[in-house]
Amino acid sequence: MAGRVVRRRWLRHPAQTIVVGFAAAILVGTALLMLPVASTGAGGTDFVTALFTSTSAVCVTGLVVVDTGTYWSAFGEVVILALIQLGGLGIMTFASVVGLLISRRMGLRTRLSAAAETKAVGLADIRKVVTGVVKVSLLVEAAVALVLGLRFWLAYDESPGRAAYLGVFHSISAFNNAGFALWADSLIGYVTDPWVCVPIALAVIFGGLGFPVWFELRREIRRPKVWSMHTKMTISVTVGLLVLGTVFMTASEWSNPDTLGAFSAPQRVFVGFFHAVMPRTAGFNSLDVGAMNDSTLLGTVVLMFIGGGSAGTAGGIKVTTFILLFFVIYAEVRGESRVNAFDRQVDDRVIRQALTVALLSVGAVVGSTLLLMSLTGLPLGPVLFEATSAFATVGLSTGITYDLPTSADLVLVGLMFLGRLGPITLVSALALRERRRHYELPEGRPIIG
Amino acid sequence: MAGRVVRRRWLRHPAQTIVVGFAAAILVGTALLMLPVASTGAGGTDFVTALFTSTSAVCVTGLVVVDTGTYWSAFGEVVILALIQLGGLGIMTFASVVGLLISRRMGLRTRLSAAAETKAVGLADIRKVVTGVVKVSLLVEAAVALVLGLRFWLAYDESPGRAAYLGVFHSISAFNNAGFALWADSLIGYVTDPWVCVPIALAVIFGGLGFPVWFELRREIRRPKVWSMHTKMTISVTVGLLVLGTVFMTASEWSNPDTLGAFSAPQRVFVGFFHAVMPRTAGFNSLDVGAMNDSTLLGTVVLMFIGGGSAGTAGGIKVTTFILLFFVIYAEVRGESRVNAFDRQVDDRVIRQALTVALLSVGAVVGSTLLLMSLTGLPLGPVLFEATSAFATVGLSTGITYDLPTSADLVLVGLMFLGRLGPITLVSALALRERRRHYELPEGRPIIG
Ligand SMILES: [K+]
Ligand SMILES: [K+]
Repeated sequence: MAGRVVRRRWLRHPAQTIVVGFAAAILVGTALLMLPVASTGAGGTDFVTALFTSTSAVCVTGLVVVDTGTYWSAFGEVVILALIQLGGLGIMTFASVVGLLISRRMGLRTRLSAAAETKAVGLADIRKVVTGVVKVSLLVEAAVALVLGLRFWLAYDESPGRAAYLGVFHSISAFNNAGFALWADSLIGYVTDPWVCVPIALAVIFGGLGFPVWFELRREIRRPKVWSMHTKMTISVTVGLLVLGTVFMTASEWSNPDTLGAFSAPQRVFVGFFHAVMPRTAGFNSLDVGAMNDSTLLGTVVLMFIGGGSAGTAGGIKVTTFILLFFVIYAEVRGESRVNAFDRQVDDRVIRQALTVALLSVGAVVGSTLLLMSLTGLPLGPVLFEATSAFATVGLSTGITYDLPTSADLVLVGLMFLGRLGPITLVSALALRERRRHYELPEGRPIIG
Repeated sequence: MAGRVVRRRWLRHPAQTIVVGFAAAILVGTALLMLPVASTGAGGTDFVTALFTSTSAVCVTGLVVVDTGTYWSAFGEVVILALIQLGGLGIMTFASVVGLLISRRMGLRTRLSAAAETKAVGLADIRKVVTGVVKVSLLVEAAVALVLGLRFWLAYDESPGRAAYLGVFHSISAFNNAGFALWADSLIGYVTDPWVCVPIALAVIFGGLGFPVWFELRREIRRPKVWSMHTKMTISVTVGLLVLGTVFMTASEWSNPDTLGAFSAPQRVFVGFFHAVMPRTAGFNSLDVGAMNDSTLLGTVVLMFIGGGSAGTAGGIKVTTFILLFFVIYAEVRGESRVNAFDRQVDDRVIRQALTVALLSVGAVVGSTLLLMSLTGLPLGPVLFEATSAFATVGLSTGITYDLPTSADLVLVGLMFLGRLGPITLVSALALRERRRHYELPEGRPIIG
């Protein structure tokens, strides 16, 4: 069932395809959002505001220059929701297909297909990936929407229709790690409500694991030992970062009267957990980010930069990229000649890809922070936070987004686009050029970027 | 003349030796500075102030918690000067010997010795390195001291004795990249005086090139083509960073009335050049660092983090470490299977060492910034600046050093020590464990850390 071998242009140049596709979606979204019917005020929306919002939606970032719930009409909100869903499906499908292509090229057997012998990727494979991605997305989104809708209807006196709409909107926004909310203060109004925060956090975490992990979990959830290196890495780093992040957030904001200080001890841990989930890379907030300590913000920057799993809806350099660099250091410090991780050795090319993605990402964030500081005159803390949030498609902000000059808005637009597509297109371009080589030992091949 | 092979403990464990040696020097310096005779005020100096100053001197950092020129007596100043000279000679000698050991172990012919066949390092080699380092140091320091002394005597009405003392102090402080100055405002009083600023800048740059580069330049200054990869890298990156840094500093502060804005256009370029030299990693300042734009400070942080050349008096991750990472990215983006630089291929182990040094350094700076922010409550900008300055042994400050709590002082003490000895001891520990391998092509071996 490997099917007809696809020799079409878009598979030979996948990076070009996704860049053009995303750019087209953003421009169509911009045009739609500029229509007078898309906003509640009189007249249409200006180009930069529409472009910013459309880019933020397609790149599932969630930074906003106008309040989503009041500025846009129902039509505008549905456009945004459609752009989020399109952007989320697009990046997941693309990244999964690229992962499949890379595995095939390297002659690796993966669980995404039984026919590891075939080196080409067929239409049947792609169809399988696309239907798989769509199925999982709709299933998770429906479940979360149901819980949220019931909660908004029963506990917050919303009409059934409005509650359903709120449920669907925030479920899609959460699963796709978009972080758009219809309340001006995001989820601050629901900070201690587990029926709202838990489903959203679970959708965010699940969306951020990525398709290859879902696919493997579905088949082998009871047998962690047979998981691929990629799945083992993604799961363990995700769990590790959630635990560490919760401890850090809770401890760092514990006695801040403007954030966690207002709550009981168990509530502080609960909210701390929520704010350990959101930087990776959903971008909802149930606390005022602008009121957090500077050290909390720096810790959040680190979590945002790392991001979530590959081939999911999360952004950042990805947990596999991050942890690979740790394994390199570990191997080096121990004097090993090969880098091993989870009982597999890691190819030097993969290490160099991880290094390339991480360093170019650092360069993008530092460079754009410098540029944004000189454009705005704002201090380092909030600007670094904003740049990292845009690059890692997180959407958290200390609150400066509303008041930025147009030039800074355009820098953020570029950064969101670069952050969403840069790492994955870079890795696909790098990896698909590799010649097949012979390995003396079985090799694990985590997806980078 | 490879001489008697040294099998002594300190050559088998060079990292332990240098750590113990530096710690001992710091403690002796602390004790001397605590003596009542060392300070101008009544009674002795408290332990933390003496420890901070001694660490800053031995690690040639230049951060100060008390004003050097007024707080310490002549005796105290001479102690500081001796600690600087000792620290500078110590790090240069140690790093050069380690570089020699590594080259020998890897079977590489280096210009430091004609006998590449001998794998062991003899006492004769070490004597050669030590006398070479001492000779170069004294020669450069004497020349710079002469120019500075004459200038202070002839143009600033200092007595001949005082002028000579000022010349010697700042010459030693400059060549060793220490950045200690006897004026509370560092070199702000001499901002446009080329007879003060140029000799100091040249001493700083020269000291920062490192012994292996001096050694090679002395023999082959007219034949750049035969230079080793290490020398080519160090020279070209140094020149590149000086040019880029000058452009950046000058442009970024051009119209800031509190810094460059006060000067004529040519003066702005001159002062911009001086402030492109100082972050790498001397730490004198002729402008008020605290009055600089936040974007200038971030650019300075980047320059400080990169630092200067290996086996010299500069700190930071070193220019070779920095540029190697660029070559890795370049090779990866071009799809090369090997990393080539300056007509040599770079071994994968060297790349991993560079990566290890760079990532652990990022971790140290980010981690200590987090810690310092939670200890002081100060915002990200000045704290990141201070932590990078301490780690890279630069000594520039936005002015917060004087008012830090004791806990933060101790963090900075640790950071200066770690930054001075961490990269080089790490690399020596890593590299000296390497087994000798056979290479199919000639290989360049830049010194990392
Ligand atoms: K997001
Ligand atoms: K210094």
